Amino acid sequence: MYPLNRVLERAAAYFPHRIAVVDGERRMSYRVLADRVHRLAGALLSLGLGRGDRVAILDWNSHRYLEAYYACAHANLAFMPVNSRLAPRELRYVLQDSDARAILFSEPFRPLYEEVAKGAAGLSHAIGLALPQRPAGVLDYEALLAEARPLAVPEPADAGEIAQIYYTSGTTGEPKGVCLTHGNMYAGGLDGVVALAMTREDSWLHAGPLFHLATSFAVWALPIVGGTQHVIHFEPKRAIELIARERVTMTSLPGAILPMVADMPETRAADISSLRRIVYGGSPTPMGVLRKAAAALPPALNHVYGITETAGFATSLAPADHVFDGSEAQLRRAASAGQATPFIDVRVVDDDGRVVPAGAVGEIVCGGPKIMSGYWRKPEATAAALRHGWYHTGDMGALDGEGFLTLVDRKKDMIISGGENVYSIEVESVISMHPGVAEVAVIGVPDERWGEAVTAIVVPRPGSEPSAEDLAGFCRGKIAGYKIPKSFEFRTEPLPKTGPGKIAKRVLRDPRWSGLGRKI
Amino acid sequence: MYPLNRVLERAAAYFPHRIAVVDGERRMSYRVLADRVHRLAGALLSLGLGRGDRVAILDWNSHRYLEAYYACAHANLAFMPVNSRLAPRELRYVLQDSDARAILFSEPFRPLYEEVAKGAAGLSHAIGLALPQRPAGVLDYEALLAEARPLAVPEPADAGEIAQIYYTSGTTGEPKGVCLTHGNMYAGGLDGVVALAMTREDSWLHAGPLFHLATSFAVWALPIVGGTQHVIHFEPKRAIELIARERVTMTSLPGAILPMVADMPETRAADISSLRRIVYGGSPTPMGVLRKAAAALPPALNHVYGITETAGFATSLAPADHVFDGSEAQLRRAASAGQATPFIDVRVVDDDGRVVPAGAVGEIVCGGPKIMSGYWRKPEATAAALRHGWYHTGDMGALDGEGFLTLVDRKKDMIISGGENVYSIEVESVISMHPGVAEVAVIGVPDERWGEAVTAIVVPRPGSEPSAEDLAGFCRGKIAGYKIPKSFEFRTEPLPKTGPGKIAKRVLRDPRWSGLGRKI
Repeated sequence: MYPLNRVLERAAAYFPHRIAVVDGERRMSYRVLADRVHRLAGALLSLGLGRGDRVAILDWNSHRYLEAYYACAHANLAFMPVNSRLAPRELRYVLQDSDARAILFSEPFRPLYEEVAKGAAGLSHAIGLALPQRPAGVLDYEALLAEARPLAVPEPADAGEIAQIYYTSGTTGEPKGVCLTHGNMYAGGLDGVVALAMTREDSWLHAGPLFHLATSFAVWALPIVGGTQHVIHFEPKRAIELIARERVTMTSLPGAILPMVADMPETRAADISSLRRIVYGGSPTPMGVLRKAAAALPPALNHVYGITETAGFATSLAPADHVFDGSEAQLRRAASAGQATPFIDVRVVDDDGRVVPAGAVGEIVCGGPKIMSGYWRKPEATAAALRHGWYHTGDMGALDGEGFLTLVDRKKDMIISGGENVYSIEVESVISMHPGVAEVAVIGVPDERWGEAVTAIVVPRPGSEPSAEDLAGFCRGKIAGYKIPKSFEFRTEPLPKTGPGKIAKRVLRDPRWSGLGRKI
Repeated sequence: MYPLNRVLERAAAYFPHRIAVVDGERRMSYRVLADRVHRLAGALLSLGLGRGDRVAILDWNSHRYLEAYYACAHANLAFMPVNSRLAPRELRYVLQDSDARAILFSEPFRPLYEEVAKGAAGLSHAIGLALPQRPAGVLDYEALLAEARPLAVPEPADAGEIAQIYYTSGTTGEPKGVCLTHGNMYAGGLDGVVALAMTREDSWLHAGPLFHLATSFAVWALPIVGGTQHVIHFEPKRAIELIARERVTMTSLPGAILPMVADMPETRAADISSLRRIVYGGSPTPMGVLRKAAAALPPALNHVYGITETAGFATSLAPADHVFDGSEAQLRRAASAGQATPFIDVRVVDDDGRVVPAGAVGEIVCGGPKIMSGYWRKPEATAAALRHGWYHTGDMGALDGEGFLTLVDRKKDMIISGGENVYSIEVESVISMHPGVAEVAVIGVPDERWGEAVTAIVVPRPGSEPSAEDLAGFCRGKIAGYKIPKSFEFRTEPLPKTGPGKIAKRVLRDPRWSGLGRKI
């Protein structure tokens, strides 16, 4: 196949005048985008950055963010999109651990830069993105571009060289830098093209943050077909307005946000029929929540399962499989995460790494050209994750006889109650179908008799007041008795979330286990 | 990316029960297909065939033909789909030149086998495909499969090893074996998937012969997405009937056959609205012919340009660009062969290999992962064709500023008249728009004054009798005076065609040049 950094070059050669990027009032053709990328690549190299040096970025979604993606690949630098929600302590860790040489940042991140990055050892270059006032020692992005000697021909790169490093949100231990190679990201872009059947006519809205692969795979997908990327700093109403105005055909949303977006009066009022794919994922989405969302949106829902370590998608469930009112089999399929995408292998294995029979639950492992090369400078963590050539996701699931993957839980979210495995998502799915429930999380709490007791934390819908008895009765007959929560807790405030919109079960669970030495 | 011989394995793992192949009454799931392929691969190796040995086939389209494609890749043998129209002398040459070790053949080719192949040196194995009576020494395909030890795991293969060899029809000199590697064919399949936006819901009708890349790229495309392949021995009415019955979504047809198929009463009567892509190409198709065909077919026309040496497509013009009643620019685009497909680079160069400006005519050269590794055991011909890393097609064309390629002629079909270049297709396009014209070929004939004189050979439509004056007058104002034919010849019988349906200009031209030492 082509090297990753030929992707934009090809688009500029074959689709020079097609619109590559739309950011607010700014519309850039592929030719203009390539010119800016060549300039940025030339400027970065002229600063003295060398092959594989880490270049971090702290910005909301912007055309400059995209330019930096392409320019680093073009110049064979390792691009490091940093989670914009990091606390100063975390950012300090990430910059030190990665040994970042340069950082790009925009105005909202200037205080963070000044607190953390300014003095960081090894960080020799800082570039400000459209800053109203530049701190001393910070270069101006546009001035750099204007003065740069463009690097017109990409640096030759091996498929195995690192293109991008993403620090995982790290639910346990310190964050780890996931190293994705040129080959990984090319396969990732192409995988998106094929799995979503993208064509030149498609446009992608980067609604979620560009530091996350849920949307950043599309950085490499759209130029393959010559389509358009729209960037916004996510705000649901603005996103809907933009989709309607620009006739956007594809976007991705965290599963946890999908119901809220579907529910907005703005969504109902807007003509968003141009949407062919609304990619969602990030966590097993309870069935009841999904069905309500599907009813309010165009027939475009595309469930995906994937992680940073798999360079985005691992499985995909096409809109045609989102059938919520069909047979039991169709319903099961609609609740699944779909089938392996074209450049991923998926298996479900037991604790000894043996493939389990169809339908049986085990750990999901992934292989193929999208699997990360490893964690940055963490050979032990890499060896632990990449056993026998397979990436061990830590997620529990089952593959049916047709290759559809059903997620049951994070390994650590699994509850063992009275010797029985209880998958919290299964219980959440049932409770979420109750009309009076807005949000639900099911966790295990210490219990002398059961080891762990199944507990549900419920946020009722405004105006509803379901009782524990109501909900337990609602569960009866739908799931086995031992899965029905032993207790229900009700809250009025929304449940805490982690970065990409997943419910932060650890926050709910940890206080109940502190001092007990597990489930942390 | 994946090795070529993982393509079918993945489909069998992730889409085991989806229908892979339909051949008459026979419907095979991916699991059944993979099992037969494993058996055939095991059987071929057990005969003593070794890595890279050539395995020829002579058959109409059949499920066994497809099985042989996959089994040879699986066992790392070089598969050689032989043109079923070859004369005995040509077949003898091909088998000798390739040093084929084994041949598979079906009943219609038994006489040819007995005349030519039986005694061929080096050809140690013959396998009969469903023969009513097997000649001595010929093995039975189904018996081999039944007795085989299946080769369940594909042989590891480098991307650079030869997967398939196609002998070109060879308009000049002896036929040459085009060597396409595992990497070429994988890119070829994937290119088809992306260029045609194939999904799991798609089905492909192998209407044209499986020894031609116009359809055989799809052998590798459909399993990537888990779609279905239909095989028939082409007969227009049967093809239309099958498309309607099976709701086929994609097929390819030679451009020269397209008008005839569009014109059939059966086509008008059938519901073929399931067709999303009717891929056509093989020769520059005159505009008037195309417009008539487009009016009678679903909005699915997809023009492609490609050659065996590019493993299929090089450019593709999507249905949305087939606009025949729009602006001048849209019309020009509709007459083009489209833009470079995702795994092809296209350039137009002058005689010194320099890229010409947008809009200028030159020789079309192609690069990228789909370009053949070379001609079988012909290093000089390979070096001549693959200059500076680019395959020189011998076709003349122009790329516009948006990357759309317009074909103007075969280099050798270009007419030089009074010092001016005349591209025969341009003249044919105009004449073909005349309502009284069924077929037209424009050639150069020796002329003392002009060097070459532009001459049109015309087959009128039944019931029409256009005169030379009519046609010359029709051309006036549409093309420059020096391009208007100096003479018109009228014929009632159809023009002679070469293998894939192109008008055999050489046959029309040669007699007029014999003894004059050029244009042969």
